[in-house]
Amino acid sequence: MAHDIQIVTEAELKEAVQLDLTTVDVIERAFAALAGGEVVMPPILSMDLPMVNGEVDVKTAYIPGFDGFAIKVSPGFFDNPRLGLPSLNGLMILFSAKTGLVEAVYLDNGYLTDIRTAAAGAVAARHLAPKKVDTAGVIGTGVQARLQMQAAHLVRPFTRVLVHGRDPAKAAQCAADLGQALGVEAEVMTDAADLVAQSQLVVTTTPARDPVLMAEWLHPGLHITTMGSDQEGKNEIDPKALARADLYVCDRVSQCEVSGELEAARAAGLMTGMPSELGQIIAGTASGRIDDSDITICDLTGTGAQDTAIATHVRASLPRAGQIIQT
Amino acid sequence: MAHDIQIVTEAELKEAVQLDLTTVDVIERAFAALAGGEVVMPPILSMDLPMVNGEVDVKTAYIPGFDGFAIKVSPGFFDNPRLGLPSLNGLMILFSAKTGLVEAVYLDNGYLTDIRTAAAGAVAARHLAPKKVDTAGVIGTGVQARLQMQAAHLVRPFTRVLVHGRDPAKAAQCAADLGQALGVEAEVMTDAADLVAQSQLVVTTTPARDPVLMAEWLHPGLHITTMGSDQEGKNEIDPKALARADLYVCDRVSQCEVSGELEAARAAGLMTGMPSELGQIIAGTASGRIDDSDITICDLTGTGAQDTAIATHVRASLPRAGQIIQT
Repeated sequence: MAHDIQIVTEAELKEAVQLDLTTVDVIERAFAALAGGEVVMPPILSMDLPMVNGEVDVKTAYIPGFDGFAIKVSPGFFDNPRLGLPSLNGLMILFSAKTGLVEAVYLDNGYLTDIRTAAAGAVAARHLAPKKVDTAGVIGTGVQARLQMQAAHLVRPFTRVLVHGRDPAKAAQCAADLGQALGVEAEVMTDAADLVAQSQLVVTTTPARDPVLMAEWLHPGLHITTMGSDQEGKNEIDPKALARADLYVCDRVSQCEVSGELEAARAAGLMTGMPSELGQIIAGTASGRIDDSDITICDLTGTGAQDTAIATHVRASLPRAGQIIQT
Repeated sequence: MAHDIQIVTEAELKEAVQLDLTTVDVIERAFAALAGGEVVMPPILSMDLPMVNGEVDVKTAYIPGFDGFAIKVSPGFFDNPRLGLPSLNGLMILFSAKTGLVEAVYLDNGYLTDIRTAAAGAVAARHLAPKKVDTAGVIGTGVQARLQMQAAHLVRPFTRVLVHGRDPAKAAQCAADLGQALGVEAEVMTDAADLVAQSQLVVTTTPARDPVLMAEWLHPGLHITTMGSDQEGKNEIDPKALARADLYVCDRVSQCEVSGELEAARAAGLMTGMPSELGQIIAGTASGRIDDSDITICDLTGTGAQDTAIATHVRASLPRAGQIIQT
């Protein structure tokens, strides 16, 4: 029996869905659903392709009550910039949760992943950062460095942003872009320790394999969201920092212990217990920040539940956009 | 940077690619590549959805020397027939092996899976069945029962086909269809043991969880291809038959031991060694049938390498078909 499939391009998606409070709320609902225990979220299918300096990840999740479920394919081919192409690409496919039929193909080249990832940072900040944030800092200078600060600003409208990166020119550009986008004071910090010392909210967005944020830099009233680690061997935060914080929270424990900050901490013999998940804090089944002086860390590896949430949101926002193909 | 993506529907695919010797050769090359040890084929991503009587499988493989790699999504929603929809659906996405960019989306509703699965049966028959097959038998009466007999006939042009199924009406229809399609004598066998006794080549295509083919039915000069088991708990062939055969061959050992016939045999304490893979027999690095009187069994669970092979073949056959979307 023929059925209609909606094909939507990156340009059409960018016009329809942006990083705003609506998107943040959509992603928050996905986290809350994860806490309910009825979400089906298989382990990430990960294909490492060292012979072409590439990797491919496939994520999915079925969330009861959502009309559809997404399968998201994220290839990363890191020699692409030499060919004038972006390293990260990919697409999302939305399936009916009732029949399994393909409903839509979102040819987003990673755009929906970018904004659902940033939106998760806003969810973490909303539930874990101190109520008042004057200064936010970001370690990293790429697309997510910008998006994470924009996301954090939606829920904690800080007046000053600090940027640290290995490449001073990129850090300067990132600071300039953020200052303009958010209308806040923006400054490059040569020393990451200074950035942390002056911030109440810090986000790390690097592909680091050795910590870029040390335990001795922690100070009362600090929240850290770490979202760079998403593969075995990556590590942004000093394992001792996880143990020293008042609260360490995962997006998904089963992912963080193999590809997030929990991996290095467990390898170091730290953090042997079962951490809370962000969804449990949203749902009220685990406690979050208790005091303004608490030190909190949220470890985001990225979940298929976020992909299903953003894809079903796009479907609702764009019921007739793009091209309809009958098959 | 914008790039072109080809979107091709099931009808367009059916016109361009069929189950023929060209397709069989394409799939044979994928098996041979698997034997080379340089294929990257991650474990199948499998999402079980009991609340909607459904399941979703995602397969992929990167084959060095192939221009692209496929990611294939196969949803099975088994209440669909009540809605007038097929249980099995899905699509294939072809990515550039060099850049990871999406090159094509094949909205095949499972058609390409059907023919690459049947083609694997032909590859197994070509390399393992006795040279002369007068009578072929199939246990099962669905789409694959028909396709597997058509595939076998391409490489072993038998003159008589036997069909056994639980539902006599479906068996009669399947036999009638096969007789007409292949121009051979076709007969329903009420007793599966009789079917095996009279055949030199038998294919099982059922979703059985208890064996439908018993060890005591084996006879000299018999080849069996078993392709129904593709999930934990499925089991078509009496585990004792695997041990009694002169040769048992897997498409992929790591898959057959969790979701093929090897699962039940290992659970029964049989087949503790490392079986050969079909690709090794094609490549000549393991021995196949030695004598016309040998009893051989080939266990096909379906591999991502077959998906990559069929998708790159479609791309080469249909460079400009379908719709081109720029994104």
